[in-house]
Order: sequence, then structure tokens, then C-alpha cells
Amino acid sequence: MQSDPDDHEENPRPRSRRLPRSVRERQILDAAVEVYAARGFHLASMDEISEVAGISKPMIYAYLGSKEELFVACIQREANRLIEAIGTAVDPEVTPDEQLWRGLRVFFDYVQRNRASWTLVHRQAAAGGEPFATEFGQWRERAVVLIATLLARATENAVRPMQVQQMEPFAAALVGAGESLLDWWIEHPEHTADGLAMRLMNLAWMGFGDLVEGRSWAPASSEAPANED
Amino acid sequence: MQSDPDDHEENPRPRSRRLPRSVRERQILDAAVEVYAARGFHLASMDEISEVAGISKPMIYAYLGSKEELFVACIQREANRLIEAIGTAVDPEVTPDEQLWRGLRVFFDYVQRNRASWTLVHRQAAAGGEPFATEFGQWRERAVVLIATLLARATENAVRPMQVQQMEPFAAALVGAGESLLDWWIEHPEHTADGLAMRLMNLAWMGFGDLVEGRSWAPASSEAPANED
Repeated sequence: MQSDPDDHEENPRPRSRRLPRSVRERQILDAAVEVYAARGFHLASMDEISEVAGISKPMIYAYLGSKEELFVACIQREANRLIEAIGTAVDPEVTPDEQLWRGLRVFFDYVQRNRASWTLVHRQAAAGGEPFATEFGQWRERAVVLIATLLARATENAVRPMQVQQMEPFAAALVGAGESLLDWWIEHPEHTADGLAMRLMNLAWMGFGDLVEGRSWAPASSEAPANED
Repeated sequence: MQSDPDDHEENPRPRSRRLPRSVRERQILDAAVEVYAARGFHLASMDEISEVAGISKPMIYAYLGSKEELFVACIQREANRLIEAIGTAVDPEVTPDEQLWRGLRVFFDYVQRNRASWTLVHRQAAAGGEPFATEFGQWRERAVVLIATLLARATENAVRPMQVQQMEPFAAALVGAGESLLDWWIEHPEHTADGLAMRLMNLAWMGFGDLVEGRSWAPASSEAPANED
């Protein structure tokens, strides 16, 4: 589903010379995420990134450094965006189950709308070897701690409130479950983001014990998706 | 925690010349799993594998082929062993929750006792690039289908029996949760295999909905581990 490289020649992006540095940097990062996600670190070329961005190679080097530094900057921006999206979606004023549901829903929805971002952070970072695997590991650890914090906060008023540290292994399990479901999704594209979020919600909130007894979870909010099954 | 390479010189393994081929092949694979897990595919050397196995390089090439073929043979043997261990541990005669518990327990216990095997299959296969990432992906897919089959079979007599296909996304989530918890374990070695299996059991069987209400799962079997919390 990659666009034909020749497209760029037929429809060259405007090479405006008076844009502020922050806009240029965003354009470079946008292009680099796309190219690194499609090719991986080793096969990606600065020529292609330059062409997709519509910004000269010397300017890319001047603004964001080497090919390696640019790749790290991409991982940082994209991982940060995903973590922020989840963090801001979770409203501490709603019930614990609704909080978990909102977090899961935003996660699947975000990745669906930013597939290149996810591929870069989750797959190409690990496949690129060091120092990228370590960089990814640090962001993933940050995500686990964030999820553990959100889970612990959600249980504050429950019968059995949980501490962040207690929640960490559960958060690690949940993050892995989400990553794995996204991989599975690639081979089963007939599923929707909300359908997968709902499955993970049912697994994480209800558990198999309830599911096999015919009890499943349904959101209280009115904009609820229909259950797929 | 890697052994000093010099150990091999001080304590050379016997280079017996009359062992049957199957025994030699096992020795080669055992050594190769150890070396590949410690070094990764690219940095591993056939010299070291030969030294650890106590078998000459020409014999390794004759029996198991190139460095690449040997790596694939290692992935195949180790992935197959883990999948078989889980499959045979799950007794269809016990209750669904007990089946899930036994599967999870064997998974964490197996990986604890075969850490090099897990590192090779799970980390070095992906980091080694192609064709190893694809080889790993196929084994992982096989594991997901096995888990989905076990989960579906476990619900046969439940109020709401599940089909294998319905269980697949849950199985994918569960496999990812297990992988992620194992990664998390490396940074938190104070936890036991049974402790982590119990956490994943509580997440998967009970769900957060029950946990925050103070309801957790406990095995019916007498050899149950004490809950860590």
C-alpha cells in the first residue's frame, strides 16, 4: 500500500523557502516517520526522506542531525504522542471500567489512524538494532508505568484500591496484550478498532470466568459501539 | 551472567568420536541455542558453537548446515518444545479455570528453566532480521492458534461455549500478555514464576472488575502456591 515513489515527481510538494524552523522540522519528521516505517532504518535513505519532505538533505542534517539521530527523534515524537493520547483520554471523574475502556479505545483508534507511527515505534525500532531497541525499551517502560498509574488511580475508590507498584505487572500484561492484538489485526483486517478494544476490555475487565458464563462488559456511554459478536 | 569463554579451555568437554548422529545433533543444537541466545545471530560465531559443543566445525556443517540453517533449526526446536510443554500440561478433564492455570504455570516455569531458549526464540529471532523474523512469526501464530483451541475446548461445557475462531483475538492478547510479563520479569527478578502466572491468571480469568472488588482467583489443587500479595 506504499505510494509509488514516482508520485513525488509528478506532484512535487512545494519547496517554500520562508517557513519557520519548527514547521520545517515537523515536515522532516513527518516524512521520516513515513519512510522509516515503510523501509526500516537500514534500508531507508536520506534521499527519499528529502524527497518526501520536499526539503534538501543539507537542511535536514542541519536541523535534525544524522540519519541515526533523525530516527531517534522520530521514535521519541511518535512514542510520546501515543502515550499523551492515552493519558489525556482517560478522565479520572468517570468509573474505573469507563476509564479503562476510554484508554483502550483511544489506543486502538490512534494506531489505526497512525499506522506508520506504530510500525516505526513498535517494529522498526526493535528491528533496527541498537541504540534504537534501547530507546524503544525506555518508551515502552514509560508506557507501562503510565498504565499502572492510570489503573491504580482508577481503583482509588474501589473496595480494594491498588498501588501503582502492585499494578505494574498487570500493566505490563495489558501493554503486551494490546501490542499483540495489533499484530493480530494486520492478519485479520475485518475487525474494527472498537471491536478489538471491546475484546481487550472484556478480557481485562470481565475475564474469561465471566465470559464463559455469558457475562460481558458494555459501556454506559451512549456512543457505545455495537458488540461485534 | 554469561560463563567465561575460558571455562571451556580449562574444562574441555569430551570429544567422543563414537556417538550416534542424533546425540551429536542434540549436542550441537544445545550449544548453538546457548551461543545464539547470548550473542544474537550476527555476533555468534561457529567457532564458539564448535567449542561449546565439543564438536568440530566441519561436522557441524555436515550435520546441520550453514550458520543460518543452524539458527533456524534452533528456533524450530525451541519453539516446538515450548508449545508442546503447554499443550501437554493442559488436562481437558479438569475445570476450565484449572486448565488455564496449568497452561500459564507451565509457560512461566518452562521459560524460567529455559531462559536461553526463550531469549533465542523471542528476542534473537526478531533481532536477527529475515528469514528469522518470519520463522518466529509463524511459530508465534501457531502458538496463538493452539491457545485459542485450548481456550475454546475449556469452555465446551460452559454456559457460553466459545469457538476457536472467536477465541483467537483473546488468545493473541493472552500470548502478548505472557511475552510482555516475561520481559518485565527481567527487570523485576524478585518475582517467582508462580507469582507471575497467578497474576496473569487473575487478570485473564477474574479481570480487573473482580480484582478491584476484592475477588481473586485461587487454585483448587493442593499444590497451590501462596498468593504473593
